[in-house]
Amino acid sequence: MTSSTAAREYARAHANQFLAELIETLRIPSLSADPAHADDIRRMADWYEAHLKHLGLQKVAVMPTAGHPVVYGEWLGAGPDKPTVLVYGHYDVVPALMEDGWETDPFKPVQKDGKIFARGATDDKGQLLIHIKALESYLKTAGAAPVNVKILLEGEEEISSPNLLPFIKEHIDLLRADVCVISDTSMRAIDEPAILHSLRGMTYAEIEVFGPSDDLHSGLWGGATHNPALALVEILSKLYNPDGTIAIPGFYDDVVPLTPEEREMIARTNLTDEQFKEATGVPAIWGDPHYNIRERISARPTLDINGLWSGWAGPGPKTIIPAKAGCKISSRLVGNQDPHKIFDLLRDYVESITPETVRVEVRLLTTGRAALFPFNSPAMKAAARAYEKGWGASPVFTRGGGSIPIVAEIAALMHIPVVLMGFGLDSDGLHSPNERFSIEMFERGIQTAIVYLEELAQLPA
Amino acid sequence: MTSSTAAREYARAHANQFLAELIETLRIPSLSADPAHADDIRRMADWYEAHLKHLGLQKVAVMPTAGHPVVYGEWLGAGPDKPTVLVYGHYDVVPALMEDGWETDPFKPVQKDGKIFARGATDDKGQLLIHIKALESYLKTAGAAPVNVKILLEGEEEISSPNLLPFIKEHIDLLRADVCVISDTSMRAIDEPAILHSLRGMTYAEIEVFGPSDDLHSGLWGGATHNPALALVEILSKLYNPDGTIAIPGFYDDVVPLTPEEREMIARTNLTDEQFKEATGVPAIWGDPHYNIRERISARPTLDINGLWSGWAGPGPKTIIPAKAGCKISSRLVGNQDPHKIFDLLRDYVESITPETVRVEVRLLTTGRAALFPFNSPAMKAAARAYEKGWGASPVFTRGGGSIPIVAEIAALMHIPVVLMGFGLDSDGLHSPNERFSIEMFERGIQTAIVYLEELAQLPA
Repeated sequence: MTSSTAAREYARAHANQFLAELIETLRIPSLSADPAHADDIRRMADWYEAHLKHLGLQKVAVMPTAGHPVVYGEWLGAGPDKPTVLVYGHYDVVPALMEDGWETDPFKPVQKDGKIFARGATDDKGQLLIHIKALESYLKTAGAAPVNVKILLEGEEEISSPNLLPFIKEHIDLLRADVCVISDTSMRAIDEPAILHSLRGMTYAEIEVFGPSDDLHSGLWGGATHNPALALVEILSKLYNPDGTIAIPGFYDDVVPLTPEEREMIARTNLTDEQFKEATGVPAIWGDPHYNIRERISARPTLDINGLWSGWAGPGPKTIIPAKAGCKISSRLVGNQDPHKIFDLLRDYVESITPETVRVEVRLLTTGRAALFPFNSPAMKAAARAYEKGWGASPVFTRGGGSIPIVAEIAALMHIPVVLMGFGLDSDGLHSPNERFSIEMFERGIQTAIVYLEELAQLPA
Repeated sequence: MTSSTAAREYARAHANQFLAELIETLRIPSLSADPAHADDIRRMADWYEAHLKHLGLQKVAVMPTAGHPVVYGEWLGAGPDKPTVLVYGHYDVVPALMEDGWETDPFKPVQKDGKIFARGATDDKGQLLIHIKALESYLKTAGAAPVNVKILLEGEEEISSPNLLPFIKEHIDLLRADVCVISDTSMRAIDEPAILHSLRGMTYAEIEVFGPSDDLHSGLWGGATHNPALALVEILSKLYNPDGTIAIPGFYDDVVPLTPEEREMIARTNLTDEQFKEATGVPAIWGDPHYNIRERISARPTLDINGLWSGWAGPGPKTIIPAKAGCKISSRLVGNQDPHKIFDLLRDYVESITPETVRVEVRLLTTGRAALFPFNSPAMKAAARAYEKGWGASPVFTRGGGSIPIVAEIAALMHIPVVLMGFGLDSDGLHSPNERFSIEMFERGIQTAIVYLEELAQLPA
């Protein structure tokens, strides 16, 4: 019996325990965006610290940053002649409110139809635990893993990792590895596993329009006051051209065009209109007609309003002209768009179309660079073999529409490939009400991660 | 000494007591729009009931409606050969939150610079108390007022009086009067008192746009999903024409054109750009360039966005495509626009410009008819004399930009003139943070109301 066979048997035998541990982590509302949850973030970090220590990892610590802390732990028992893999995951989650449409409490995990429902189930507590459990399965059977493993868990991914890059720079020697693996992505269907070779970047901004110094009585002043909500609406309505393309001058200038070869590969995983409508519930497809659906949601940049606010949103009427109106707006970027340049273009454009009847502020909230990797590197091929043997299906290489801002930064800083092995489903509802994670996929993920450590052992250290 | 002279002296001698009573009423957060304040509404009604009983009025009662109750009380001691005046006021207020910009608690009244700061100070608790104190001043001196007085206080004016009309219909005999007086309006400056002969009407609606069934991850689905916030913005941006007129087809069809004579009268009370900017804090004037500022804010219809909401408005970024987006929108109407017809035009237009990529709902919240009275009736002339003698300045007749929905209905139902004697200032900040009422104007208002009762005695009963 090879060490991976024993580890895989151990994982199957301990499936219930692993699930119970996942549920423990999902009970902690580790929201990174909301300062009111700082204590929960800390409780969550402490949980992982205790758990990694319990599994026998070394140098386990909750390490401070300028924001929420990082959890680190390592097992280097494979020795210096074996490769080292750096596992990255994030233990923070996005907000979740019952009134957004949750059927059960987002922080009281519920099992139903073979899935576990909770905020963070798939993004990313379920997926990150897979690698910890894969390592445990080796350590509790053979007493050793085939490669050295370093585990790095951050608490600020959902607020665009403002402090991770300085942390990595400061601890570059501690973190040194031959490959980085991240499981924070998803596949279209359970038997179509996907390895991402590209992620979109991000420019996230806030626009606020100011009119009168206070809310005004709409009867006394209405008719001669430019309503800031109306002014905001007029500005935002000019962000798109009638043909569905983004109207900000220069927005597309740095986009690397898709090659015919890649468009052909993407076409093989395209979604039909019906599939897209089924998955999202939208009444009809929208977007730039020059690109197919898969290209629009993964290989092309976007511009979305993420939030709008002004005046009275409570029950009943309130007859005011609001003093101000605001929105959150973000752009998903592709190579080689620079997030700061895109912000400058957005701000300049918004300022240029704002009338003198109101005042506007455009503020940058966060940025993240897009990532693009070749998909024929040894580490990528090892991941493909791991899916074949551990998951039971050959993976496709695809572009991811989402952003993991730190991916491009890790690759640039550490000069190593980043392998994005997703174990979630596109339809897991991440960032949405009723987020869920398939228990079967949690278990097949652990099997795949176990095999991956063995496959990585064949790489040069 | 005439009875009005004694009453005026009594009012001057009891100014501090009257102010203390006003402050008592301002401590009760009688918000009509928010069901959480139903008990406060009731406490407020009970306060007025107790106060009117204490002053010796008859038939004093808190009378039920399908919503918040009416407070009623009458003094008919002048006898059937004297006219009867129906005083209408409202004891409910609009919401007030510290975070909207209040410098002090809106329900802990503060005296500063000769003003009393609190929600409801000018709208309408301060103004309605003026008439109660005028009546008291007669009853406590001569023991009788020059005319019969009926007092009707409602608790739903700020939510457009949904139950007052049925109440008046049911109690039409109880309420019968020769003239109705309402003090719920304002003047431009303390020495320029104004009697309104027109009020704008109201159509208040909610628009909601629906896209995906749940909030979506903007990375996974962005690019092929019509963002409901963007769709709403695109719809709302088409409500106005580039020339500042409202784009809803048929919107202006029933507007009675202003006569050259009235435009000349309005021109005499026009505001300069500087005065308007000073009063509101806006950086520049806006609106339909075919009309002057005073016309825009009082004699022309408007369309304002009163609230906007969608997605994430909390701190930090959240990368979602919101499932829906909504707004509150209202139109101030002028004669002869029908509020229900205007709603139909708005709904039809919004539906016609909504793309198939989203679903829209347009819901009517409330309506109110515009009012227009001749300004040469005996009751109006009596009011003008009351200002000359009681306030110390001749009033102007103007159009009011605000809406008191019940004014047109009372006039139509009871076949009596409604006299709108405003005792507030345009700059009192009603419906805004730091609402205030000048203590001097409270006192001069009581003097004026005392004289008005005497002037009304000359009218035929």
